[in-house]
This record gives sequence, structure tokens and C-alpha cells, in this order.
Amino acid sequence: MTDNHLMWENLGMDVKTHDILCEVLPQAFGDVYLTQENRPNGMDYFNMVVGDIHGLRPAELIKLQEEEGKKVVGTFCIHVPDEVVFAAGGIATGLCSGSQFWVPGGEKVLPTATCPLIKASLGAHFDKTCPFFRICDLFVGETTCDGKKKAWEILSEDAEMYIMDIPQMKRPQDFKKWEEEIRNYITKIEEITGNKVTEESLKEAIVISNNKRKALQRLNNFRKLDNIPISGRDVLLIHQIAFYDDPTRFTEMVNKLCDELDKRKEEEVSVFEKGTKRILLTGTPLSIPNWKLHQIIENSGGAVICEEMCTGIRYCEALVDESGENIDEMVENLAERYLGHINCACFTPNKARIDDIIRLAKEYKADGVIDVNLKFCNIYDTEGYFVEKAMAEAGIPCIGIETDYTDEDAEQLKTRIGAFIEMLS
Amino acid sequence: MTDNHLMWENLGMDVKTHDILCEVLPQAFGDVYLTQENRPNGMDYFNMVVGDIHGLRPAELIKLQEEEGKKVVGTFCIHVPDEVVFAAGGIATGLCSGSQFWVPGGEKVLPTATCPLIKASLGAHFDKTCPFFRICDLFVGETTCDGKKKAWEILSEDAEMYIMDIPQMKRPQDFKKWEEEIRNYITKIEEITGNKVTEESLKEAIVISNNKRKALQRLNNFRKLDNIPISGRDVLLIHQIAFYDDPTRFTEMVNKLCDELDKRKEEEVSVFEKGTKRILLTGTPLSIPNWKLHQIIENSGGAVICEEMCTGIRYCEALVDESGENIDEMVENLAERYLGHINCACFTPNKARIDDIIRLAKEYKADGVIDVNLKFCNIYDTEGYFVEKAMAEAGIPCIGIETDYTDEDAEQLKTRIGAFIEMLS
Repeated sequence: MTDNHLMWENLGMDVKTHDILCEVLPQAFGDVYLTQENRPNGMDYFNMVVGDIHGLRPAELIKLQEEEGKKVVGTFCIHVPDEVVFAAGGIATGLCSGSQFWVPGGEKVLPTATCPLIKASLGAHFDKTCPFFRICDLFVGETTCDGKKKAWEILSEDAEMYIMDIPQMKRPQDFKKWEEEIRNYITKIEEITGNKVTEESLKEAIVISNNKRKALQRLNNFRKLDNIPISGRDVLLIHQIAFYDDPTRFTEMVNKLCDELDKRKEEEVSVFEKGTKRILLTGTPLSIPNWKLHQIIENSGGAVICEEMCTGIRYCEALVDESGENIDEMVENLAERYLGHINCACFTPNKARIDDIIRLAKEYKADGVIDVNLKFCNIYDTEGYFVEKAMAEAGIPCIGIETDYTDEDAEQLKTRIGAFIEMLS
Repeated sequence: MTDNHLMWENLGMDVKTHDILCEVLPQAFGDVYLTQENRPNGMDYFNMVVGDIHGLRPAELIKLQEEEGKKVVGTFCIHVPDEVVFAAGGIATGLCSGSQFWVPGGEKVLPTATCPLIKASLGAHFDKTCPFFRICDLFVGETTCDGKKKAWEILSEDAEMYIMDIPQMKRPQDFKKWEEEIRNYITKIEEITGNKVTEESLKEAIVISNNKRKALQRLNNFRKLDNIPISGRDVLLIHQIAFYDDPTRFTEMVNKLCDELDKRKEEEVSVFEKGTKRILLTGTPLSIPNWKLHQIIENSGGAVICEEMCTGIRYCEALVDESGENIDEMVENLAERYLGHINCACFTPNKARIDDIIRLAKEYKADGVIDVNLKFCNIYDTEGYFVEKAMAEAGIPCIGIETDYTDEDAEQLKTRIGAFIEMLS
């Protein structure tokens, strides 16, 4: 028995079923990632992390739990501030699941007409086939969308959950309300970890998180170049890993990669052929290991140069103001960033997202926009009405794509996306 | 040209398309309603109101607008307190639409995977085929579910809208927040109507609305009898009319009908044959003219004896505390009733609804429960997990039904519902 298998058994996982996933993941990763030419060497770290995704980091988390008494807090949404967990000496890890492998398990308890991300997350939990779900001391849910809001009730039958009620609008009173939610979240995390959140620890956590964002921003900036030194799928992978890796080590590794990309920039190295069309993706998140669209686009004459998504710009672009001097000010700054600067379709109205897409399309010199919707995500699907209208007005070619985690629509997507990219020529 | 046609033209309606609806509605109403035997005479009023649904009340509303300068406020949810509108001398009218006729119009702007109620409402507006949408001076939306929350953004492109942000939870701070929303709503309605909401007018509005609820409650109580003196479909129709009729006249008419039912009670008159199975419906609302399920159930050996729905008990069961002495106390009482005592699946958690269903099943002596879901309503669909579980634990036979506004599934529903009712024997 490998060390991983022993760990998974100790975690009470369904090891036999999980083995099926362990068999298919390397093949999928190889197909999407290792077929690429001229990848930066700095990708080695991220290859390693994802290569043993259910081994390396879980083992590390368990060690920190056992040896240092640390608590692991699992989250499902970029509106939930990691800083609070860090400031209380805890570990935050994202739990959104991106594989069809987990979907049937979710469908045992959820309606079929639920988005695959939510179904996969609950499936990963109830089928006991994801170590991260087994390790967490607390799950933190939110009321961002109907599917998640109601799914947490089912998840909470089998795990300790804490729910943050995110305002559905962004009026001045909603910021006050979100501050109150963050304050209550601090109290809950202090309880769970047994540690106080102090001015010092919260300030430090804000800086750590900002540094991670800055590194990701630095990485994204290379995609604005005419000669793009890194593929879209590689950047996506890094964004996905950002959700569960140690933030300080992750930042260091991203910056190391960026040093290498600086050299590529000087040497005008591009991983794409001349004439490759620059595609901006907007819409629902692409959780690990959901690499389907990037693979199709980048195998069809396109380069993904920006993701206006939770697994992309929405996660890293805005910083928390670091000038807060006391807890109240810091909470206010957190609320400002986590409510004000994430333009999720869960808000009404959400015009700022449309402005973001147009701005990003310019900054990243997009030739076209693909509006991606995970099947049954009603909020992004409805907002697509405004995205398509605004793109038409701005003269930016745009198509809407609806997909899920299966491969059933791969051929259809290849045809549609291929035709769209061809049309851009 | 009839008076109605002249009015519809003046309202800028698409009269030609609307005529198609005018042709099919009487037939549908006749099939469902006029085939019943031994209906109470008190139904005559409601027959008349629905018989000229796009004529009588719209003409009355226009007259009140023109002659008394009254404002008409259209709403889509029972969480929005009518009392505020009444207290400012305005008229409140429900706008939720229940016909497949309007769905294709809604699908022009909304995802197909949106619930038919929302699609029909937007279709009725954009196709200009419902006079109520044309008459309203203001639409009031809310953030109860994803579908509605995002649909209002599209509707607001073509009409003045005001949005109330309903809390997604029911903690003490959420009641405070809902009070604030109600206070802001008062300000908005004062602006629109030009009238102040006073202690006197708000108190009077609370009493008027409570009287309506008491009348409906009195009506529903007859359905607890062994000999049920009125059909489920008739009670449903009355609940549907409650949303748009003049509240004082409506209350009078319901009470008049109840006087007649009192006599039937004494005489032990039942409109159902002995052995008819008593069915409680729970789930999503049945907006006018959605009578499909009641017709199927009551033609298959069942009697609908209670609707744990927005078009049912959720609308009328809880009263607003009338003891408030000033605006603040009255707003607090409104918040308590409109947040605390409506157990919509939009809340998390929503255990109180499960308790309601079990309590109502006992009070109304239900033989079985049908959990009804409008297709693509994720919140009620997900909550169905808890409904079915709780019914199994309580030993109450239960089936889940998913349907929309089309008649395509009528045969399938007849078979399933027929088998369910047979199984209860």
C-alpha cells in the first residue's frame, strides 16, 4: 500500500472508487498539458502539485493539523475572505469541484438541473472520494446562488457548516451588512481555531493574500503582450492551484515563474504561432480539473489571454487596501474588496461586470469573447443577455457557450469554437 | 370594437395577439370550472371576475388612475407588503403569470432553463399582451430567487422597477435588515404616490390586509371538514384572484361565500364523493390561469384540501400583529410577518416549511402530499429532498411532481397522480 493509500484509508475515503479517479486524472492532465511545446520550466512546480493533487497537499494539511493543531477551513466561493482564516492561524482551502467523476454522486441528493460544480462538490463529499472534504474541520458556504444556498443544507446534514449571507445588491447599506457578516465570520473562525484575530495577524493576512494576488496579476500581465510567453491553460492551472496551495509558497513559485517569463518577454518568445487569435473567456468558474474549454480553444487556433471568471481575474485583480490601522478599518477594507470588487452575476444589478469585460478585452487585446456558462447556472445564463448586447455594441465578436463536465459536447464545441475563431481571421 | 378592445388599444397592447388568448381562456375556464357540479352560488362573483379578467379590473384600475390620481404598483412576490401601497393610497396588484401563452415571449430574453412563471411574466410584458403590465406605474421586484433577481434587470430596461433585497436567512439581524428594506420601500411608495404613509393609514392598511387573510383562512377552514363544501380548484381560483382584486370588496365576497358554506357545513354537504382522497399540495405557486394540477387531481378521485404554496396558505395564514402604535412598531410587525412567517424555499435553512407541511397535513387530514415543482425552480426542487424525507419519516404518502405550463405532460401526470391516489386507498 502506498503512503497515499494509507492516508486515504485513514481519512475514511472510499479508496476503491477513488482509485478510478487516480487512474484517469494523469491521462487527462497529460493530454491537456504535457503535449504542449516550449512550456516554461517554472511550470514544473505546478505540474508536481497537480500530479499528486490528492496526495501532496492533503498530507501537508494533515501534518499541520496533527503537529501544530491547525484547523482547515474549506470554502466554495471567492467572496469568503481567506484573510480571516489566515489571521486566526488556520488554513483555507477551496473545495469547488471540476470533474464529471463526482457529478453522479451529487445527483443522488440534488436535482439534475443543478450546475455541475455544485453537484460535483456534493458528490465528492458524499461519495468520500476527495481527501480535502475529509480533512476540513469546517465548511463555509454562502448565499451567492440558489443552487449553492440550498445545497449547503444537504451538505450540513453530514458536516459542520457555517453560512455567510452575502447581500444580493451593492448599495451602501449592503457594505455595512457585509462588514457585519465578516465580523461574525471572524468570531466563528476564532471559535474553531481557538486563536484570536488580532490587528497584527489580520494585517499580515491581508498582506499575504495581496502578495498572492499581485503575483497572479504579474502573471496575467504577460498575457497582454503580443508575444504571449505562457499558454492560457497553464495560467488557468495556476489559478486553480491558488485555491488550495500554501499561499506564501505559491506566491514564491508564481513569482519565480514570472522571472522566467520576464526573460521570455525580453526575447519576445511566444508559445503561440503568429496569427493565433486572442480569446477572452467570461462567465462561470472552471474548477480543477476542468480544462476542457482551454484545450479546445488552444487546439483550434486560439489563445486564452484572460479569464473574467472566479478562476481568473475576479480572484486576483483587486487588492485589499492595506492601510487599515485597526480591526474595524480592516474589516471595512475587506468588505469593500470582497463585495465591491467582485462582480459576480449573483448581484443585481451587475453592470460593473460588463464594464470589466469591455475593459479587459481592451487591456488584453482580445480578438473575441466567449461567454461560458455551466449548464443550469441561471444567473450567468441570464446575464449573458447583457454580455452579448454589450459586446455587439462595443463591436467585439462574442459567442455564448453552454457546457458541463461531460465530454459529450466536445465535438460540438470544437465545431462551434473552431468556426468562431475562424470568423475572427 | 368592444370597450375592452378600445381600452387595450389605448394601453398600447398587441391586441391582435392578445385576442388569441381571449379566445382560449374561456374554453379553458369552462373545462376546469363550469363542468363542476353543485358549486356554491358565491362563486358567481369570482366567475365574473375571472371571466373578464383583462377587462373588468383593468378598467377599474384605469378609472382610479385617471379620476383619483391613484398609482398602481405591480408585485411578483408575497414577501412584498401590500400594506405599504395601501397606506399611501395606492393600489397593489400581483403580476405573476400562469399561462404558457406568455412563455415563448419570455424565452426571447431569458434562458429556456428558467421557471415558466418568470418567463411568462416577462413575456406578458414584452409581448404587450397583459393589460396589468401596461397599467402599472411601478414594478416591485425582489431577490428571492436567482431567476427573478436577474429577470428584473431585463424587465427594468423597459419599465420603472424598484428592488427589495430580501435576506436569505432568518437570523435576528436579518429581521432588522428587512425592517430597513420596508422603511425604504415606504419612502419609494410615498415618492411614487405623492402621499405620506401615516400611523393611521398604515394601521388601517394592516387591518384591511388582515381582514382579507382572515376571510381566506375562514374559507380554508371549510376544507378541514370531512364533508368538504367547496372544491380545491374553486379555492385556488379565489386565492389567485386575491392578488389583483380590490381587497375590501374581495374580503366581503369571500365572507359572503363563507356564509353559504356555513349552511353547507350544517347540512353536511360535500362537493366530493365519499372516499375521495384528501391531497395537500406543497411547493411552487400556481399563478392564474394555472389550474392544471387541481383539475387532474380532482378528476382522478382526489380533493385538494390545502395548498402550502404562495397561492395558498403561505399567503393568508399568518396575520400582522395589529398592536403597533407607531410607524416603527408597525414596520417591525410587518417585518416579523413578511419575513418570519413565510417559509419560502428561498431561505436557508427553511426547516419551518417542513414543520408547516406536517402540521397542515394533520390539520387538513391529508391522505397524501404532492410536492409540486415548476420546472427549473432550483430552490423548491432541492428542498424536495427534505420534504420527501420528512414525509417518509412522518408516514405521510408523498410524491414529487415536476411540471410546467404546457399540456404536454398532462397524460403522464394523470397516470402518475392517478396511481398515487389509487395507492392511498
